Order: sequence, then structure tokens, then C-alpha cells
Amino acid sequence: MTRFALTLEFDGGPYMGLQRQAHGPSVQQAVEEAVLSVTGETVTLHAAGRTDAGVHARAMRVHVDVAKDIGAFRLMEALNARLRLVSEAIAVLDAEEKPDDWHARFSCTGRRYVYRIINRRAPLTLDAGKAWNVKQPLDEAAMHEAAKALVGRHDFTTFRSTQCQADSPLKTLDRLAVRREGSEVLIEAAARSFLHHQVRSMVGCLALVGMGHWPVARMAEALAARDRTALGHNAPPEGLYFMGADYPA
Amino acid sequence: MTRFALTLEFDGGPYMGLQRQAHGPSVQQAVEEAVLSVTGETVTLHAAGRTDAGVHARAMRVHVDVAKDIGAFRLMEALNARLRLVSEAIAVLDAEEKPDDWHARFSCTGRRYVYRIINRRAPLTLDAGKAWNVKQPLDEAAMHEAAKALVGRHDFTTFRSTQCQADSPLKTLDRLAVRREGSEVLIEAAARSFLHHQVRSMVGCLALVGMGHWPVARMAEALAARDRTALGHNAPPEGLYFMGADYPA
Repeated sequence: MTRFALTLEFDGGPYMGLQRQAHGPSVQQAVEEAVLSVTGETVTLHAAGRTDAGVHARAMRVHVDVAKDIGAFRLMEALNARLRLVSEAIAVLDAEEKPDDWHARFSCTGRRYVYRIINRRAPLTLDAGKAWNVKQPLDEAAMHEAAKALVGRHDFTTFRSTQCQADSPLKTLDRLAVRREGSEVLIEAAARSFLHHQVRSMVGCLALVGMGHWPVARMAEALAARDRTALGHNAPPEGLYFMGADYPA
Repeated sequence: MTRFALTLEFDGGPYMGLQRQAHGPSVQQAVEEAVLSVTGETVTLHAAGRTDAGVHARAMRVHVDVAKDIGAFRLMEALNARLRLVSEAIAVLDAEEKPDDWHARFSCTGRRYVYRIINRRAPLTLDAGKAWNVKQPLDEAAMHEAAKALVGRHDFTTFRSTQCQADSPLKTLDRLAVRREGSEVLIEAAARSFLHHQVRSMVGCLALVGMGHWPVARMAEALAARDRTALGHNAPPEGLYFMGADYPA
């Protein structure tokens, strides 16, 4: 058996999420079926992160174990050819052999996300389904200031989905930064791991600050409250991108 | 009558081009019909540039003359609401009143394009239909060097479509610059005006240089030849974006 690490890019729009779901198509199912068709083997895909329905990935790291004697490059090419037959939404950007003790999920020491807001009156065309269109003007400096209250080790119960399965709401947020590029407001988030819906939940609150509905100081109060009802709505999934996973060298 | 300058963003994928066509949908037709539905008036849209089928725009400048007493902001909002009913592909980013002698096409003193190449083996997902996927590694430094031969005032017959209706093949290319951002190779072009297919034709040749099929010096030879048969294929339309039009202050 050879363990292959794959780097996936996908458009989350057509999928119920990365993880296999009983009630609809998933990225996991599509890639596992492609591996089956290429190798004849039924494999289980393990991923660095579990993205929600509609969430995109620029570089999701996953692994599969394959018995067939096939090199990493040939596997990548064959998977892309196969995936193309069923969907334009998933591609394998890279494949490499890894030792058996390397695990896409458990070896991962950092996850990075970007959330894209396009802040303008006009509806989206080229970016439809690829960003959140916020029509009210956003004060990105206030958002960045409010974001600082969340960086560090905290109990993130406020920003946690009721379906979150993590053992503990304690997480260390390494980075949460807001910047503007023209009409686009970009929010970068990085941590060893996140709670379910945490990024979208934080972005939803940052947007309330940006619109002036929340003063900057309310972010720290919401965090301290450890109470879901202190919260704004989650930002919609189509603005969220899994950008990369980090592993020890 | 009030002349309104509109800034349009559009996804060129669903359209036969900006200009009205007998044989298929156009951006012009969609916007003129939206104006008719908002004002009851049959107008003619004039645009800074005529983009081909499949070519996108981030900021196309156009104008229409409207008799109805409606402000620029209300016109923009009403057009966007109307356009949304028929298509997700066109939006009005901005509207402003202009004097009667301001003309989107004839007053325009500069047109800017960007061509997006995604240079990787893997097929496109999030950028499908929004960039040209070149699988062979491109040498962007060689492309940038070759591009320099085209900047300035030249007879661009080599890079002109056989259907080009311009009186003269003499044009001044103000800028043609190639740079890489990760797997993306971006080509910026700016001129007072371009010949039909000129940008896609230049990009097609630059790609041949980038792949190593053409030495850098061949670009100057192709230009000097003033001969279409000296040419590579046009780059496909889906990588091309009309980025903006300039007018005297």
C-alpha cells in the first residue's frame, strides 16, 4: 500500500460538503469513486478539514491508500481525467507519496481560510456563488480592530455550531485579519483547528461591526458571553475558501 | 434627454459578445431591453469597446440617452433589479449623468485589458470559463521580454483579424506587460484602441514564446512580417477581461 497525499481544489457549489453525506453528493464521494475507477480499489479519503455545503477549497489536503503500482503523477493525471467526466468542480492540483504515519487530518498542524466579501450595491456576475455580496458600506478598519479581540486562546462557544462535535470549545486562533482591496473585503483566518461553523460565525459578526450595527467592543463581549444567542447570523458559505493545511516539515 | 454613463460588469460566457448580433444574445440587447422595461424607451447603447463572444468585462463603460425623469442611482438600481430577472451575468456597477457631447466610444482615450492564464496541469474548477488553462510550464520572463517588441506605434497587421473593420492597422500600444502570481500568468494591455482580436492574437504568440516554441526574437519578426500567416492561434476568449476605459478629466 502506498499513501498518497493529494491537494484538491474544488468549487463547493454543487456539493453537500467535503464529507460523505447520505442525502447528497460530496467531494469525498466524487474523489473516492474516481480512485475506484482508476485503481479498482475502494478507498477512504481523509481530509485536513471538513468543509460545509457550498464552501470552496483552493488547496485542501487529503490522503488515500492505494495498492496498485502507480506513481503520484500518473495517479493525479488519471484522477483529473476521470473527475472531468463527472464534474468540472474538482481537480487534483498535486499528488505525492507519503510515509504511512502521515495523516491528512491528524498530522495537520494548521488550517488557513480566506473569506471573500464583495462590498457593493450591484449584484455579482463573474463572482456569483464565489463571494458574499454585502451591499451596505463596510468599515474594514473597524472590522480589523474587532477581529483582534478573537485572536489567541479562548473559549469559542459563542462562535460554535450547535452541531459541533469537538470535545472542547477551547481553541487558539492564530490569525484573524481584515483588509480591503477595492470593493473586496478579505478576511484571513488561521488556527491549528476550528470549531464547526467558527469562521462563518466570526465573519457574520465582523460584518455587523463593519456595517456599524455592532460597536467594535461588542466582539469581545460576545466572546466572553459564551452564548450562541449573543451572535449574529453566520456568513453564507459561498464566500469561504479553505486555502491550505500545514504539516511539520 | 439625459445621457447616462453606465459601468457594466459582465460574464461574457452566455453572450455572443457585447454588440447586438442577429444570431444570438448580446450584452447590448440585454441592457437595452432592461432600459426599455425601466423607462418605456427604446434606446441604443454605445460602448467603449466591442468585446467578442465569451470575453468578460470588469468595468465596461457605455452610455444611453433617457427621456424619463430618473436619477442615476435609481436608474442603476432599477436596471440591476431588472437584469437579475433574466440573467446573473450582467450588473451595473455605476451610473452617472454626463453632458450630451460625452460619448462612451468616441470620447474614450484609453482601453485596458487583462488576460488571465492559469498555468498548471490540473483542469480549472473555480476559474472554469474565467481563464485560459495552459498546461505546459510558461516562462513569463521570456514572455515579458517578447512583449516589449510590440509596445509603441506599429503596423499591427500580423495581429489583426481578417474581419477587422478599422481603417488603418497602425496603432500605438501603450503597455503590454507579463507577470506571474503563483500559478497565474497575467498579461496587461493598454492602448487608445485595439484592432479586432489584437489582444487575443498577441497573447497567443506570447504563449508560444512562454512554452519555448518561439524564441523571444520571433515576436519582432512576426510584427515586421505584417502577415497573418506568421501568427500563432488566438488565445481563447474566456481569459480576456475588459478592465476599464479612460476619458479626459
